[in-house]
Amino acid sequence: MSDILQQLGQTLEERKQADSGSSYVAKLYASGLDSILKKVGEEATETIIAAKNGEPQQLIHETADLWFHTLVMLAQHNLRPEQVLAELERRFGQSGLAEKAARTTRPPSA
Amino acid sequence: MSDILQQLGQTLEERKQADSGSSYVAKLYASGLDSILKKVGEEATETIIAAKNGEPQQLIHETADLWFHTLVMLAQHNLRPEQVLAELERRFGQSGLAEKAARTTRPPSA
Amino acid sequence: MSDILQQLGQTLEERKQADSGSSYVAKLYASGLDSILKKVGEEATETIIAAKNGEPQQLIHETADLWFHTLVMLAQHNLRPEQVLAELERRFGQSGLAEKAARTTRPPSA
Amino acid sequence: MSDILQQLGQTLEERKQADSGSSYVAKLYASGLDSILKKVGEEATETIIAAKNGEPQQLIHETADLWFHTLVMLAQHNLRPEQVLAELERRFGQSGLAEKAARTTRPPSA
Repeated sequence: MSDILQQLGQTLEERKQADSGSSYVAKLYASGLDSILKKVGEEATETIIAAKNGEPQQLIHETADLWFHTLVMLAQHNLRPEQVLAELERRFGQSGLAEKAARTTRPPSA
Repeated sequence: MSDILQQLGQTLEERKQADSGSSYVAKLYASGLDSILKKVGEEATETIIAAKNGEPQQLIHETADLWFHTLVMLAQHNLRPEQVLAELERRFGQSGLAEKAARTTRPPSA
Repeated sequence: MSDILQQLGQTLEERKQADSGSSYVAKLYASGLDSILKKVGEEATETIIAAKNGEPQQLIHETADLWFHTLVMLAQHNLRPEQVLAELERRFGQSGLAEKAARTTRPPSA
Repeated sequence: MSDILQQLGQTLEERKQADSGSSYVAKLYASGLDSILKKVGEEATETIIAAKNGEPQQLIHETADLWFHTLVMLAQHNLRPEQVLAELERRFGQSGLAEKAARTTRPPSA
């Protein structure tokens, strides 16, 4: 299961060649970057609303939607989920987490 | 690398017991759900802006920030990244992808 | 022209009694708060994208959409645009603006 | 009170000449479009959270913050609130509202 993001990244890369009528994703690519980003904004909003509602299944569902559309956005920019995971690893892998634990005021991206 | 999300989920779960002054995350938990969701909204906005700017490193960085804060949000609701990955697997694993390829009009969550 | 927000607030108040099939707004009320807030999030995203695109007409159009849906949200909570304008007046009316000019580090809401 | 948006638009226009250390707004202009848009995204998120919390004063406060930062965004693009109000007038003035009442399926921007 842990490789689903990489698999999805691979599939999204392959779909870029597909006919725009052949799938939801192919259609999304064809509609352009702004349409993809609108979906990212929509799903972020729906995730926040779900978190306020406190319904676990709704929250899992909306978070999956949000992550999925960020993967489409990355693919549209020729980026892969592995690069985001590597960034998280760099920040939060063993040494990263130890370092983080020592800080209190700066955000994880600081 | 592919297990970084699960590792992070585990660490975020453990941090819930920590003193609120001991780390960025402990402080975020202490500030409550609304503060965590504000961060999700902020990072979603910064991701969209980065995607419009078309700078790959900025986009990877902001997407990592966004994913990270959704993990904190999930932990705050006692949910784990594995549950979101399982949802993506369910939708987009082998059979899921085949099914998806056949559809053009409905979103992935439909 | 300056009274269009108040007029709209009045109209939106009246529409709350309308049959849910009678107009876009009546339908939006009937779909509930979460649906209205999804629209607010969508329009905020589209406004940000339009601002990045730098196309004046698109930006005016999307900002109007955003303001409109915040008016529907206010009406759904039995609030009126006058109350938001009064808050802006309080902060930025003559004395408010003078006070503001003297500050540099705090946000206008601080 | 109904002219506060126009007054604010005028003031925001004038502030563009100010020293970047002289006020919150002058500082915001100096930090650039992306910083202004991050504020728009943040305030939209806070407005949505306030609406879910159902606290009227918080909602008025956050909506004022959101409108204010959209005015700064407009000013940064050399646009004025009057242009957004005119767009709302065009859509929702007498004839506009009558027309709108007859529709049920299309959004107000359609």
